[in-house]
Amino acid sequence: MEKKAIQDYYSDPMSHCYGCGRLNDFGLKIKSYWNGDESIATFKPKPHYTAFPGFVYGGLIASLIDCHGTGTAAAAAYEAEGRSMGTEPELRYVTGSINVKYLKPTPMDTELFLKGKVKEIKERKVIVDVELLANGEVCAQGEVVAIKIPESMIIGI
Amino acid sequence: MEKKAIQDYYSDPMSHCYGCGRLNDFGLKIKSYWNGDESIATFKPKPHYTAFPGFVYGGLIASLIDCHGTGTAAAAAYEAEGRSMGTEPELRYVTGSINVKYLKPTPMDTELFLKGKVKEIKERKVIVDVELLANGEVCAQGEVVAIKIPESMIIGI
Repeated sequence: MEKKAIQDYYSDPMSHCYGCGRLNDFGLKIKSYWNGDESIATFKPKPHYTAFPGFVYGGLIASLIDCHGTGTAAAAAYEAEGRSMGTEPELRYVTGSINVKYLKPTPMDTELFLKGKVKEIKERKVIVDVELLANGEVCAQGEVVAIKIPESMIIGI
Repeated sequence: MEKKAIQDYYSDPMSHCYGCGRLNDFGLKIKSYWNGDESIATFKPKPHYTAFPGFVYGGLIASLIDCHGTGTAAAAAYEAEGRSMGTEPELRYVTGSINVKYLKPTPMDTELFLKGKVKEIKERKVIVDVELLANGEVCAQGEVVAIKIPESMIIGI
Protein backbone atom coordinates (compact mmCIF):
# COMPACT_ATOMS: atom_id res chain seq x y z
CA MET A 1 0.00 0.00 0.00
CA GLU A 2 1.27 3.45 -0.99
CA LYS A 3 2.38 5.34 2.12
CA LYS A 4 1.48 8.84 0.97
CA ALA A 5 -2.23 9.64 0.87
CA ILE A 6 -3.85 10.28 -2.50
CA GLN A 7 -5.02 13.70 -1.32
CA ASP A 8 -1.48 14.68 -0.33
CA TYR A 9 -0.56 14.59 -4.01
CA TYR A 10 -3.17 17.24 -4.87
CA SER A 11 -1.62 20.57 -5.83
CA ASP A 12 -2.05 23.49 -3.45
CA PRO A 13 -4.90 25.18 -5.34
CA MET A 14 -6.81 21.85 -5.27
CA SER A 15 -6.25 21.25 -1.55
CA HIS A 16 -8.91 23.46 0.07
CA CYS A 17 -11.72 20.91 0.14
CA TYR A 18 -13.61 20.75 3.45
CA GLY A 19 -13.65 16.97 3.16
CA CYS A 20 -10.10 16.18 2.17
CA GLY A 21 -8.03 19.32 1.63
CA ARG A 22 -4.76 19.36 3.56
CA LEU A 23 -4.90 23.18 3.48
CA ASN A 24 -8.42 23.47 4.95
CA ASP A 25 -7.82 24.09 8.66
CA PHE A 26 -11.45 23.41 9.57
CA GLY A 27 -11.98 20.37 7.38
CA LEU A 28 -12.16 16.62 7.85
CA LYS A 29 -8.78 15.91 6.20
CA ILE A 30 -9.87 12.56 4.83
CA LYS A 31 -6.85 10.55 3.69
CA SER A 32 -7.21 7.74 1.17
CA TYR A 33 -4.56 5.19 0.21
CA TRP A 34 -4.33 3.24 -3.02
CA ASN A 35 -2.71 -0.13 -3.58
CA GLY A 36 -3.24 -0.37 -7.32
CA ASP A 37 -6.41 -2.37 -6.92
CA GLU A 38 -8.46 -0.81 -4.17
CA SER A 39 -8.37 2.22 -1.90
CA ILE A 40 -8.73 2.38 1.83
CA ALA A 41 -9.22 5.11 4.40
CA THR A 42 -9.89 5.24 8.11
CA PHE A 43 -11.68 7.99 9.96
CA LYS A 44 -12.57 8.61 13.59
CA PRO A 45 -15.50 11.06 13.81
CA LYS A 46 -15.43 13.80 16.42
CA PRO A 47 -18.25 13.46 18.97
CA HIS A 48 -20.35 16.26 17.49
CA TYR A 49 -20.76 14.43 14.16
CA THR A 50 -23.73 12.61 15.55
CA ALA A 51 -27.15 11.85 14.07
CA PHE A 52 -28.67 10.61 17.30
CA PRO A 53 -26.63 10.04 20.41
CA GLY A 54 -24.33 7.10 19.72
CA PHE A 55 -24.63 7.12 15.93
CA VAL A 56 -22.72 8.84 13.15
CA TYR A 57 -24.36 11.58 11.08
CA GLY A 58 -25.38 10.43 7.60
CA GLY A 59 -24.11 13.63 6.00
CA LEU A 60 -20.65 12.90 7.36
CA ILE A 61 -20.83 9.39 5.95
CA ALA A 62 -21.78 10.83 2.55
CA SER A 63 -18.84 13.24 2.81
CA LEU A 64 -16.39 10.44 3.58
CA ILE A 65 -17.68 8.38 0.66
CA ASP A 66 -17.58 11.42 -1.60
CA CYS A 67 -13.94 12.39 -1.01
CA HIS A 68 -12.78 8.80 -0.83
CA GLY A 69 -14.53 8.18 -4.14
CA THR A 70 -13.06 11.14 -6.02
CA GLY A 71 -9.63 10.39 -4.56
CA THR A 72 -9.87 6.79 -5.71
CA ALA A 73 -10.90 8.00 -9.16
CA ALA A 74 -7.77 10.15 -9.38
CA ALA A 75 -5.47 7.33 -8.26
CA ALA A 76 -7.03 4.89 -10.73
CA ALA A 77 -6.80 7.42 -13.56
CA TYR A 78 -3.07 7.95 -12.99
CA GLU A 79 -2.61 4.21 -12.93
CA ALA A 80 -4.58 3.82 -16.17
CA GLU A 81 -2.24 6.35 -17.79
CA GLY A 82 0.80 4.54 -16.42
CA ARG A 83 1.81 7.63 -14.47
CA SER A 84 2.67 8.26 -10.84
CA MET A 85 0.42 10.46 -8.77
CA GLY A 86 1.83 13.96 -8.53
CA THR A 87 3.07 14.03 -12.13
CA GLU A 88 1.79 16.60 -14.61
CA PRO A 89 -0.77 17.17 -15.93
CA GLU A 90 -2.70 16.88 -12.69
CA LEU A 91 -5.70 14.56 -12.71
CA ARG A 92 -8.48 15.66 -10.40
CA TYR A 93 -12.11 14.64 -10.17
CA VAL A 94 -15.29 16.24 -8.91
CA THR A 95 -18.46 14.46 -7.95
CA GLY A 96 -21.05 14.20 -10.69
CA SER A 97 -23.39 12.21 -8.48
CA ILE A 98 -23.36 10.27 -5.26
CA ASN A 99 -25.67 7.56 -4.04
CA VAL A 100 -25.48 6.29 -0.47
CA LYS A 101 -27.48 3.46 1.07
CA TYR A 102 -27.49 3.46 4.86
CA LEU A 103 -27.71 -0.21 5.71
CA LYS A 104 -27.53 0.09 9.48
CA PRO A 105 -26.83 2.79 12.07
CA THR A 106 -23.09 3.55 12.20
CA PRO A 107 -21.77 3.57 15.75
CA MET A 108 -19.71 6.45 17.15
CA ASP A 109 -16.64 5.82 19.29
CA THR A 110 -15.03 3.49 16.81
CA GLU A 111 -12.80 4.00 13.81
CA LEU A 112 -14.60 3.86 10.50
CA PHE A 113 -13.06 2.02 7.59
CA LEU A 114 -13.66 2.83 3.93
CA LYS A 115 -12.91 0.60 0.98
CA GLY A 116 -13.13 1.81 -2.61
CA LYS A 117 -13.26 -0.20 -5.83
CA VAL A 118 -13.30 1.15 -9.36
CA LYS A 119 -16.37 -0.12 -11.20
CA GLU A 120 -15.86 1.70 -14.46
CA ILE A 121 -13.13 3.91 -15.83
CA LYS A 122 -13.40 6.05 -18.95
CA GLU A 123 -11.58 9.09 -20.26
CA ARG A 124 -13.69 11.66 -18.40
CA LYS A 125 -15.62 9.56 -15.88
CA VAL A 126 -14.75 7.06 -13.18
CA ILE A 127 -17.39 5.20 -11.17
CA VAL A 128 -16.28 4.08 -7.72
CA ASP A 129 -18.06 1.79 -5.29
CA VAL A 130 -17.32 2.54 -1.65
CA GLU A 131 -18.16 0.52 1.43
CA LEU A 132 -18.08 2.04 4.89
CA LEU A 133 -17.52 -0.37 7.77
CA ALA A 134 -17.59 -0.06 11.54
CA ASN A 135 -16.44 -2.90 13.76
CA GLY A 136 -16.14 -5.13 10.70
CA GLU A 137 -19.74 -4.59 9.57
CA VAL A 138 -20.75 -2.78 6.39
CA CYS A 139 -22.93 0.11 7.57
CA ALA A 140 -23.19 2.07 4.31
CA GLN A 141 -22.64 1.50 0.60
CA GLY A 142 -21.97 4.30 -1.81
CA GLU A 143 -21.48 4.89 -5.49
CA VAL A 144 -19.61 7.96 -6.66
CA VAL A 145 -19.64 9.07 -10.28
CA ALA A 146 -16.48 11.13 -10.53
CA ILE A 147 -15.98 13.56 -13.40
CA LYS A 148 -12.54 14.71 -14.53
CA ILE A 149 -11.90 18.41 -14.10
CA PRO A 150 -10.73 20.04 -17.34
CA GLU A 151 -7.05 20.96 -17.06
CA SER A 152 -7.89 24.56 -17.91
CA MET A 153 -10.09 24.73 -14.82
CA ILE A 154 -7.33 23.37 -12.59
CA ILE A 155 -4.92 26.01 -13.84
CA GLY A 156 -7.60 28.67 -13.56
CA ILE A 157 -8.34 28.12 -9.88
CA MET B 1 -45.79 29.10 5.54
CA GLU B 2 -45.44 27.74 9.09
CA LYS B 3 -43.24 30.09 11.12
CA LYS B 4 -41.64 27.48 13.36
CA ALA B 5 -39.05 25.24 11.71
CA ILE B 6 -39.84 21.54 11.34
CA GLN B 7 -36.66 20.68 13.26
CA ASP B 8 -37.70 22.88 16.17
CA TYR B 9 -40.58 20.49 16.82
CA TYR B 10 -38.19 17.57 17.34
CA SER B 11 -38.03 16.41 20.95
CA ASP B 12 -34.82 17.04 22.89
CA PRO B 13 -33.42 13.51 22.54
CA MET B 14 -33.90 13.78 18.75
CA SER B 15 -32.25 17.19 18.46
CA HIS B 16 -28.54 16.35 18.50
CA CYS B 17 -28.07 15.88 14.75
CA TYR B 18 -24.98 17.60 13.32
CA GLY B 19 -27.03 18.69 10.35
CA CYS B 20 -30.20 19.98 11.96
CA GLY B 21 -30.21 19.48 15.73
CA ARG B 22 -30.97 22.66 17.68
CA LEU B 23 -29.00 21.15 20.60
CA ASN B 24 -25.82 20.43 18.60
CA ASP B 25 -23.59 23.43 19.32
CA PHE B 26 -21.17 22.54 16.51
CA GLY B 27 -23.74 21.66 13.88
CA LEU B 28 -25.23 23.26 10.80
CA LYS B 29 -28.64 23.91 12.37
CA ILE B 30 -30.52 23.47 9.12
CA LYS B 31 -34.07 24.83 9.46
CA SER B 32 -36.83 23.66 7.13
CA TYR B 33 -40.30 25.13 6.79
CA TRP B 34 -43.42 23.40 5.51
CA ASN B 35 -46.44 24.96 3.90
CA GLY B 36 -48.54 21.82 3.54
CA ASP B 37 -47.39 21.26 0.00
CA GLU B 38 -43.66 21.85 -0.15
CA SER B 39 -40.79 22.60 2.18
CA ILE B 40 -38.19 25.31 1.94
CA ALA B 41 -34.94 26.10 3.69
CA THR B 42 -32.19 28.63 3.23
CA PHE B 43 -28.56 28.22 4.21
CA LYS B 44 -25.48 30.40 4.01
CA PRO B 45 -22.33 28.22 4.12
CA LYS B 46 -19.40 29.35 6.21
CA PRO B 47 -16.28 30.04 4.12
CA HIS B 48 -14.52 26.82 5.09
CA TYR B 49 -17.25 24.64 3.52
CA THR B 50 -15.52 24.89 0.21
CA ALA B 51 -14.74 22.27 -2.44
CA PHE B 52 -12.46 24.48 -4.48
CA PRO B 53 -12.05 28.16 -3.79
CA GLY B 54 -15.36 29.81 -4.65
CA PHE B 55 -17.51 26.68 -4.70
CA VAL B 56 -19.50 24.85 -2.05
CA TYR B 57 -18.40 21.43 -0.82
CA GLY B 58 -20.53 18.58 -2.21
CA GLY B 59 -20.66 16.82 1.15
CA LEU B 60 -22.27 19.91 2.66
CA ILE B 61 -24.81 19.94 -0.16
CA ALA B 62 -25.59 16.28 0.53
CA SER B 63 -25.99 17.12 4.24
CA LEU B 64 -28.42 19.95 3.50
CA ILE B 65 -30.47 17.74 1.20
CA ASP B 66 -30.39 14.93 3.76
CA CYS B 67 -31.74 16.88 6.73
CA HIS B 68 -34.15 18.89 4.62
CA GLY B 69 -35.44 15.61 3.19
CA THR B 70 -35.99 13.83 6.49
CA GLY B 71 -37.56 16.96 7.97
CA THR B 72 -39.93 17.23 5.02
CA ALA B 73 -40.81 13.56 5.47
CA ALA B 74 -41.77 14.20 9.10
CA ALA B 75 -43.89 17.23 8.25
CA ALA B 76 -45.68 15.37 5.47
CA ALA B 77 -46.30 12.36 7.72
CA TYR B 78 -47.93 14.51 10.42
CA GLU B 79 -50.06 16.11 7.76
CA ALA B 80 -51.07 12.72 6.36
CA GLU B 81 -52.20 11.71 9.86
CA GLY B 82 -54.11 14.97 10.25
CA ARG B 83 -51.96 15.93 13.23
CA SER B 84 -49.95 18.99 14.09
CA MET B 85 -46.19 18.68 14.38
CA GLY B 86 -45.12 18.36 17.97
CA THR B 87 -48.06 16.12 18.93
CA GLU B 88 -47.51 12.61 20.28
CA PRO B 89 -46.49 10.08 19.18
CA GLU B 90 -43.47 11.76 17.64
CA LEU B 91 -42.83 11.06 13.98
CA ARG B 92 -39.16 11.08 13.04
CA TYR B 93 -37.35 9.80 9.99
CA VAL B 94 -33.85 8.61 9.26
CA THR B 95 -32.23 8.40 5.86
CA GLY B 96 -32.49 5.02 4.17
CA SER B 97 -30.71 6.29 1.08
CA ILE B 98 -29.73 9.53 -0.57
CA ASN B 99 -28.95 10.29 -4.16
CA VAL B 100 -27.50 13.63 -5.20
CA LYS B 101 -26.77 14.83 -8.72
CA TYR B 102 -24.44 17.82 -8.89
CA LEU B 103 -25.64 19.69 -11.94
CA LYS B 104 -23.26 22.62 -11.75
CA PRO B 105 -20.73 24.07 -9.30
CA THR B 106 -22.54 25.78 -6.41
CA PRO B 107 -21.12 29.25 -5.72
CA MET B 108 -20.06 30.35 -2.25
CA ASP B 109 -20.93 33.82 -0.94
CA THR B 110 -24.61 33.52 -1.67
CA GLU B 111 -27.54 32.11 0.23
CA LEU B 112 -28.56 28.63 -0.86
CA PHE B 113 -32.21 27.78 -1.25
CA LEU B 114 -33.69 24.30 -0.83
CA LYS B 115 -37.09 23.15 -1.99
CA GLY B 116 -38.55 19.78 -1.03
CA LYS B 117 -41.48 17.90 -2.57
CA VAL B 118 -42.93 14.62 -1.39
CA LYS B 119 -42.85 12.08 -4.22
CA GLU B 120 -44.27 9.12 -2.33
CA ILE B 121 -45.63 8.62 1.15
CA LYS B 122 -46.31 5.28 2.80
CA GLU B 123 -46.69 4.08 6.37
CA ARG B 124 -42.97 3.57 7.00
CA LYS B 125 -41.31 5.34 4.08
CA VAL B 126 -41.43 8.78 2.52
CA ILE B 127 -39.54 9.70 -0.65
CA VAL B 128 -38.65 13.36 -0.98
CA ASP B 129 -37.24 15.21 -3.98
CA VAL B 130 -35.06 18.16 -3.08
CA GLU B 131 -33.68 20.88 -5.31
CA LEU B 132 -30.83 23.11 -4.21
CA LEU B 133 -30.61 26.51 -5.87
CA ALA B 134 -28.09 29.34 -5.83
CA ASN B 135 -28.84 32.68 -7.46
CA GLY B 136 -32.04 31.18 -8.88
CA GLU B 137 -30.29 28.29 -10.63
CA VAL B 138 -30.72 24.64 -9.70
CA CYS B 139 -27.22 23.44 -8.81
CA ALA B 140 -28.08 20.05 -7.31
CA GLN B 141 -30.98 17.63 -7.27
CA GLY B 142 -31.46 15.07 -4.54
CA GLU B 143 -33.73 12.20 -3.64
CA VAL B 144 -34.03 11.15 -0.02
CA VAL B 145 -35.68 7.88 0.98
CA ALA B 146 -36.71 8.55 4.57
CA ILE B 147 -37.55 5.69 6.90
CA LYS B 148 -39.75 6.13 9.97
CA ILE B 149 -37.99 5.47 13.24
CA PRO B 150 -39.86 2.94 15.37
CA GLU B 151 -41.45 4.68 18.34
CA SER B 152 -39.65 2.30 20.68
CA MET B 153 -36.33 3.56 19.36
CA ILE B 154 -37.30 7.21 19.88
CA ILE B 155 -38.23 6.50 23.49
CA GLY B 156 -35.09 4.42 23.95
CA ILE B 157 -32.66 7.14 22.85
